[in-house]
Amino acid sequence: MNLSHNPINFPGSVAAHWLAQLKENPPLVHCLTNQVVQNFTANVLLALGASPAMVVAPQEVADFSAIAGALLVNVGTLNDSQAEAMLCAVTSANHHEVPWVLDPVAVGGLGYRTEFCRRLLTMKPAAIRGNASEIMALAGSSAIGRGVDSTDDSLSALPSAIKLAAETGAIVAVTGAIDYVTDGQISYALPFGDALMTRVVGTGCALSAVVAAFTALGREKRLEQVVTACQVMAYCGGLAAAESTGPGSFSPRFLDGLYNLQPHHLMGKTA
Amino acid sequence: MNLSHNPINFPGSVAAHWLAQLKENPPLVHCLTNQVVQNFTANVLLALGASPAMVVAPQEVADFSAIAGALLVNVGTLNDSQAEAMLCAVTSANHHEVPWVLDPVAVGGLGYRTEFCRRLLTMKPAAIRGNASEIMALAGSSAIGRGVDSTDDSLSALPSAIKLAAETGAIVAVTGAIDYVTDGQISYALPFGDALMTRVVGTGCALSAVVAAFTALGREKRLEQVVTACQVMAYCGGLAAAESTGPGSFSPRFLDGLYNLQPHHLMGKTA
Amino acid sequence: MNLSHNPINFPGSVAAHWLAQLKENPPLVHCLTNQVVQNFTANVLLALGASPAMVVAPQEVADFSAIAGALLVNVGTLNDSQAEAMLCAVTSANHHEVPWVLDPVAVGGLGYRTEFCRRLLTMKPAAIRGNASEIMALAGSSAIGRGVDSTDDSLSALPSAIKLAAETGAIVAVTGAIDYVTDGQISYALPFGDALMTRVVGTGCALSAVVAAFTALGREKRLEQVVTACQVMAYCGGLAAAESTGPGSFSPRFLDGLYNLQPHHLMGKTA
Repeated sequence: MNLSHNPINFPGSVAAHWLAQLKENPPLVHCLTNQVVQNFTANVLLALGASPAMVVAPQEVADFSAIAGALLVNVGTLNDSQAEAMLCAVTSANHHEVPWVLDPVAVGGLGYRTEFCRRLLTMKPAAIRGNASEIMALAGSSAIGRGVDSTDDSLSALPSAIKLAAETGAIVAVTGAIDYVTDGQISYALPFGDALMTRVVGTGCALSAVVAAFTALGREKRLEQVVTACQVMAYCGGLAAAESTGPGSFSPRFLDGLYNLQPHHLMGKTA
Repeated sequence: MNLSHNPINFPGSVAAHWLAQLKENPPLVHCLTNQVVQNFTANVLLALGASPAMVVAPQEVADFSAIAGALLVNVGTLNDSQAEAMLCAVTSANHHEVPWVLDPVAVGGLGYRTEFCRRLLTMKPAAIRGNASEIMALAGSSAIGRGVDSTDDSLSALPSAIKLAAETGAIVAVTGAIDYVTDGQISYALPFGDALMTRVVGTGCALSAVVAAFTALGREKRLEQVVTACQVMAYCGGLAAAESTGPGSFSPRFLDGLYNLQPHHLMGKTA
Repeated sequence: MNLSHNPINFPGSVAAHWLAQLKENPPLVHCLTNQVVQNFTANVLLALGASPAMVVAPQEVADFSAIAGALLVNVGTLNDSQAEAMLCAVTSANHHEVPWVLDPVAVGGLGYRTEFCRRLLTMKPAAIRGNASEIMALAGSSAIGRGVDSTDDSLSALPSAIKLAAETGAIVAVTGAIDYVTDGQISYALPFGDALMTRVVGTGCALSAVVAAFTALGREKRLEQVVTACQVMAYCGGLAAAESTGPGSFSPRFLDGLYNLQPHHLMGKTA
């Protein structure tokens, strides 16, 4: 039986374990991310108890990634000076065994960032988090992205995610109405979240930062860590959406939910 | 009778028509805007159902503007690399008949951006949205801006707006306590909105992005499209302000209002 | 008796006086700050009635600082082009007797920004606002910062703050669970605020912008102005935290609180 094509459930008790670990060991997350979502990303990490830091200068990023718990690389508003900083930061992170996470925003249709992300793929990301179009494009499938929107559903991208995981050694999360997370061997399906999250800019980008935060908890069981990150965000997103009348009231409730989330809240949530 | 100096009312049924069009054809809006308002601008567009994208690299902007529904150019935090990207994007937009909108933030007192905007004026913007000081400065009147605040009222800038529209072929919106929108021949007055909006950064900048979104609906009746954009924002702003105790509670309510806005809500609103 | 090592109380009536002054003379504050907090900083200043402006181009910053009421320099996401703009702006501010405020984010552990801030220290800041690690590092004490988090408590940094104030002529505010503000001779202790503020990105950075706003009120009694800025933010922060269920609901309430704050609210608050 090929488990990888039959996504399985993820036990809530395991997610609860990793959330407890995060709260006991709040990581410093170095975020090299896009201009649009920096504030929201920082607030999501702070709400979870982690410490975000957006150090950007090429003169500083190597030193900072060396002492961070994890590094996030998000190419949403990539330009040459940021690309230079990202390469310095990733090289330093790898040298100091700091895990780093790639968010390949809008890869596929735009040549500059696509070429840059292909180069990053050779630099051993611990995890990759994208939507269906982005993951298919990274894996060399034919989908063409339309900017930051996903025009493909997440299940159709699962084979690409599995291929990408197998080729790069990264845990790959492809997010959408259902999130899929795979290490190339085992794949989990997470049917949580809410469509309202797609009307708030940066929920996906912030998820990638949370993925990075969880990868700071150790090299073992990285698949579990990444699944937990997705589950935490989807669980809090679903709760906040249920209480909201739109994307404006969603955001404060979402941050409050992350702040108040306790491990036992996740116990009963078997996907 | 010179209608242009006697601003007339705008029928709510026409605004309702264009809002319905926007919901049926949600555009991709390429935003080259200032660092302060990128998040809020994206959230406003998402709340209305449009898709924002802030692609910034000179290597990518031409390709991206070519496939966007509309392009926004906002010079609030202009610098040399952004100016280069803006010229590439506008050139590509014009080549592919993608409409683009100029927001001349703080033009007048500051030479670098004023000179740059004068150059942009020769590149056929579909619409221009600014406050009184900015529109007067762009039109060559003598007002000197004090940064992003308008020190002139919008009616005093209407003659400048009409002149600017006539000279450039753009629809010109000058916003303030009352918004005026003109094509140089016909001018509409929109007495909506609320002063609380001036205490929330980016409401004007986001309006310019919404103007861009509406111009994506086709070359015909662009004056109606721009008036509708102003009416949508002022209507939702007025509703949110009425329910708010300050600028902090305004923003979530404003985004929820945009998200829940239906064409029939605008039917009774004759300016 | 060495008053400086025995921080004293600050009369609420004096804070009320300066808040009334700010409301009567709302300043234009030129903010050269980090990418993460620009939106929140602008909204905090707007809520208080001040006018923020984030003009960034080296071609414009000197002209703009010359007409601003005060200038903020925050090195959180420093890079070479921003450093160039900051030096231009500070030089112009000094030439035109416009006060400027330094926020030395994460100084200590990172060489590039630490060296830059040491250079800025020779350019006569009116005030410096940082956490304990940052102030100790600036003063040449041995603390090593861990990014934006303070790993030292504010009282332990008071001697460094006094030394820094005496050496530079700046008012120095070291903020934490208790804020201390000193001119090197007299030190005030402000036991307000709430730990929830540390879970919202930019509250410290926005305080530095508010410090800048108050320094625009004149060269006399700058110590009182800076203490008032800290008191205003801590007072509104405490109120908002008491009504909030987390950092998400805190932010809107905090901005509403600043917007509705009246001088008499501060009268009874003797630290």
